[in-house]
Amino acid sequence: MTTIAFIGLGIMGEPMAGHLIDGGHDLIAVNRSQGAVERLVDRGARAGHVAAAVAEAEVVITMLPDSPDVEAVAVGGDGIYANAKPGTLHIDCSSIRPDVSRRLAEDGAQRELRVIDAPVSGGQAGAVEATLSIMVGGADADVEEARPLLEAMGSTVVHVGPAGAGQTVKAANQLIVAGHLELLAEAIVFLEAHGVDLEAAVKVLGGGLAGSAVLDRKAAGMLTRTFDPGFRIDLHHKDLGIVTSAARDAGVAIPLGAHVAQLVGALRAQGHGGLDHSALLLLVEHLSTPPKDA
Amino acid sequence: MTTIAFIGLGIMGEPMAGHLIDGGHDLIAVNRSQGAVERLVDRGARAGHVAAAVAEAEVVITMLPDSPDVEAVAVGGDGIYANAKPGTLHIDCSSIRPDVSRRLAEDGAQRELRVIDAPVSGGQAGAVEATLSIMVGGADADVEEARPLLEAMGSTVVHVGPAGAGQTVKAANQLIVAGHLELLAEAIVFLEAHGVDLEAAVKVLGGGLAGSAVLDRKAAGMLTRTFDPGFRIDLHHKDLGIVTSAARDAGVAIPLGAHVAQLVGALRAQGHGGLDHSALLLLVEHLSTPPKDA
Amino acid sequence: MTTIAFIGLGIMGEPMAGHLIDGGHDLIAVNRSQGAVERLVDRGARAGHVAAAVAEAEVVITMLPDSPDVEAVAVGGDGIYANAKPGTLHIDCSSIRPDVSRRLAEDGAQRELRVIDAPVSGGQAGAVEATLSIMVGGADADVEEARPLLEAMGSTVVHVGPAGAGQTVKAANQLIVAGHLELLAEAIVFLEAHGVDLEAAVKVLGGGLAGSAVLDRKAAGMLTRTFDPGFRIDLHHKDLGIVTSAARDAGVAIPLGAHVAQLVGALRAQGHGGLDHSALLLLVEHLSTPPKDA
Amino acid sequence: MTTIAFIGLGIMGEPMAGHLIDGGHDLIAVNRSQGAVERLVDRGARAGHVAAAVAEAEVVITMLPDSPDVEAVAVGGDGIYANAKPGTLHIDCSSIRPDVSRRLAEDGAQRELRVIDAPVSGGQAGAVEATLSIMVGGADADVEEARPLLEAMGSTVVHVGPAGAGQTVKAANQLIVAGHLELLAEAIVFLEAHGVDLEAAVKVLGGGLAGSAVLDRKAAGMLTRTFDPGFRIDLHHKDLGIVTSAARDAGVAIPLGAHVAQLVGALRAQGHGGLDHSALLLLVEHLSTPPKDA
Repeated sequence: MTTIAFIGLGIMGEPMAGHLIDGGHDLIAVNRSQGAVERLVDRGARAGHVAAAVAEAEVVITMLPDSPDVEAVAVGGDGIYANAKPGTLHIDCSSIRPDVSRRLAEDGAQRELRVIDAPVSGGQAGAVEATLSIMVGGADADVEEARPLLEAMGSTVVHVGPAGAGQTVKAANQLIVAGHLELLAEAIVFLEAHGVDLEAAVKVLGGGLAGSAVLDRKAAGMLTRTFDPGFRIDLHHKDLGIVTSAARDAGVAIPLGAHVAQLVGALRAQGHGGLDHSALLLLVEHLSTPPKDA
Repeated sequence: MTTIAFIGLGIMGEPMAGHLIDGGHDLIAVNRSQGAVERLVDRGARAGHVAAAVAEAEVVITMLPDSPDVEAVAVGGDGIYANAKPGTLHIDCSSIRPDVSRRLAEDGAQRELRVIDAPVSGGQAGAVEATLSIMVGGADADVEEARPLLEAMGSTVVHVGPAGAGQTVKAANQLIVAGHLELLAEAIVFLEAHGVDLEAAVKVLGGGLAGSAVLDRKAAGMLTRTFDPGFRIDLHHKDLGIVTSAARDAGVAIPLGAHVAQLVGALRAQGHGGLDHSALLLLVEHLSTPPKDA
Repeated sequence: MTTIAFIGLGIMGEPMAGHLIDGGHDLIAVNRSQGAVERLVDRGARAGHVAAAVAEAEVVITMLPDSPDVEAVAVGGDGIYANAKPGTLHIDCSSIRPDVSRRLAEDGAQRELRVIDAPVSGGQAGAVEATLSIMVGGADADVEEARPLLEAMGSTVVHVGPAGAGQTVKAANQLIVAGHLELLAEAIVFLEAHGVDLEAAVKVLGGGLAGSAVLDRKAAGMLTRTFDPGFRIDLHHKDLGIVTSAARDAGVAIPLGAHVAQLVGALRAQGHGGLDHSALLLLVEHLSTPPKDA
Repeated sequence: MTTIAFIGLGIMGEPMAGHLIDGGHDLIAVNRSQGAVERLVDRGARAGHVAAAVAEAEVVITMLPDSPDVEAVAVGGDGIYANAKPGTLHIDCSSIRPDVSRRLAEDGAQRELRVIDAPVSGGQAGAVEATLSIMVGGADADVEEARPLLEAMGSTVVHVGPAGAGQTVKAANQLIVAGHLELLAEAIVFLEAHGVDLEAAVKVLGGGLAGSAVLDRKAAGMLTRTFDPGFRIDLHHKDLGIVTSAARDAGVAIPLGAHVAQLVGALRAQGHGGLDHSALLLLVEHLSTPPKDA
């Protein structure tokens, strides 16, 4: 049993924390709004606030929206690094900029804390079902110590390199996923315009080299124009900002990645930031001539 | 047992014809170069030439490189439609322009022939292992009659609509596959530039929403820069010409599709037309700064 | 004085023909709808029909919308090449596919006709003011013979190569113009979003390396959202189809050209095909977040 | 006569400072390397260092490579704002991020300094010939006070808005210029592949709606593959980073802008960062099939 301060209990964080409670851990739930905290307390957690919770914890887990949120709670005056005991392990499951993760690892080390980045992929469903893919950056020993906790929340936990490497892989993940969604959207609008049997087409596309997790999980929603998140365009837009910036810094050409980042930005600009990222279909439709018999 | 004239015995056609022989059919092998014909004769086929073979056949199967090749053998003076008996079923497994497939179906109908388009996906490996995905366009009765033969060559046989619909779905397939390859290439170069453990990264990417058949089958070759075809850039370039033209005619926006078509064209222009399409990695590398320690 | 059959009297062709009448030539006006014919007759032209007009003419000028239109009137049964006298000079001022122009030159030569391609740039205003740029492909002697007539219609007449070369240069022109319009649109929306003084900004942009004819002639209309053609999106879309196809055939990478072709296609798909091509601004706006105070 | 501290005497700054000396001003030359300082002293300037020079100056002009350089010299401990007298006017002619310019204006105001941004366009030639376009952001009175000095260095001086607006317009300028260069490069490679007379083609393109300052000044160098800067790819790459970031922050779609930023980045990655930005032609060639007879 580990005493864990879990900070950030949104639609992902809450079920992730729940799995740790189910795993028998002593979990202190920290969140701005208290609904999620109360639900977790009903399942056996304790409620807490940042400074006191991290002072008591062996492990601190953060699951927050963006780089500034993590920075504020980590290095801010009342934050994690000012209050945690030496030796505490900080597992940041947020998806943030790789350079920020590297800096946090350095800042933590100066205070004798150990910091690893462990962003997740798989969406709300993956969080609920504990089937997240988790890409972990940090020192070997720290990652191994964190592994049982991560495996309580995800089905694929892979150590991909030093501090920041988890975020880099997450960034690559988001590049690929955005591209796959856009390509599927283009293919569907193309097929519709030609009067093809769409369900049959999706079936056969899924059986060959065009097959993908995006097609398996998102094609049905696209065909019925059901875009409840899932993973919101707003968040994917944020992530693609991370990718394009990191690629630029590294001198890496990402022609399709930069292009799809523009398209996601355009969809958001049209007011669709709250829809699931599969709503890229709406943008493709919008840029295409309606089929004659529509 | 059906008497089948099989025209076009390249690296795909030869193993496809072999499965039909193994299935007990009376196969007449027709090909310009005779090596493949002789190997199939050794397995039980008869050798033949177009006019005589199709005159005798109940089913004619074509597996040729491009639209003009199929048009020449179908409607040319010594070709299929001038020589086949009324009622003969022509199954065109080539990947060609949807409008050409529709026209062939009309031309065949005028001569009381039945024509369906049944392009395949899965590459040489799929042809050898009889695990092709086959997308079929044509009349219901004709497709059902063809189904046992198609199922001898592929594991996924789906009727997707009227004449030409098979080609349209194949075009969409090639759009998606080219995009997936390029995105994976961009992700790999991005990860390499950041010093990430690539094998671990590929593993975790494959376990989440970024997972795809392209990642499963092509990432290993990309990591080792092994680009033996497989499916050649030259052919994928041809296919993307079909997609972009058909999308333009239908007024469908394919921003990523048009973009990746340019990239495939550029790779070909650099003299890499004979490599596997996963060689898009070379183009991305070429456009990127080498990592500092490389 | 030259006897000229002028075929195609649209918003460009009518004023072009008018300049030839003003130059003292014997002009036979040929057009489907008769309004333009009657107006030119009032200025001194004769009215005519294709077969009879070309039989009498020393020079035939065509100014038609698209490749099939020119092919029909040139090689059709009642067309130019079936009825013109040997030695007649056919000047095609239409903007069509370079390969069609080359073919027409060959077809004409077989009938002892001389054919040159002389597409124009400058829009309706250039046609009215006789300030068109005319890019001419064909044999030296034929181009020199045509020059006085072309100089009556345009202020820049340049011989750019053999048959088809005029069309190739026109295609390049349309690639550049579409790109310049889109870039200006992006810049204007970008500046508006930042609250810059737009008239001042356009002035200073026009004074430096960003200066262009597009900025001089189209920025004012963009700022006031005035998109009366001018040159219609529908026609520019057609021209970009010519460019992308010719670039593909030649193995030339046109990454920005292919991209802007998609954007023009998208604008047309949204129902704006009848607006001036500067309406690309609408698409950029549509893909962007409105400024906060808008 | 105004006492001016001029900080940053590179290939642009040195001739700009020279015009101010010629205009009769008391110029204190400040630069890391002393060659330029000595040449200006020979023309009548005084040599100086930042702290002492700005303490004495009525006007401080900076012409530095990038945002961090300006920030360091402005707000650093020995910098401008710590040493200048209240009321001093700081004219920053560097091309930097608009948000940094806005912040500097605020920082300066807190120390009772007046700060305007006045980035320039026109390259080394424009600096030498005093024909720069200068886009100015700041308060009306400050801009009017600076105007005589700016008009000594440029031929077009336009006040485009409040602090930062000059940088925003410069960013838009760089977006347009990069796009024009790439489009011209695509057009030239396209025309070469088709065997067109290139000098004639450039002439006729320049006479119509495709005409531009880029074509006038850069086409000749492209045709002869002469890529001496001029304006280096490295700097244009930096500027496009400013544009794409500012567009993203404002929610503005810049599809062609983002695309050409990738292409400029790729050219730089290939080791061509030191060439003139017209070297985009090399990238287009590199991505294209060489003409058959080349």
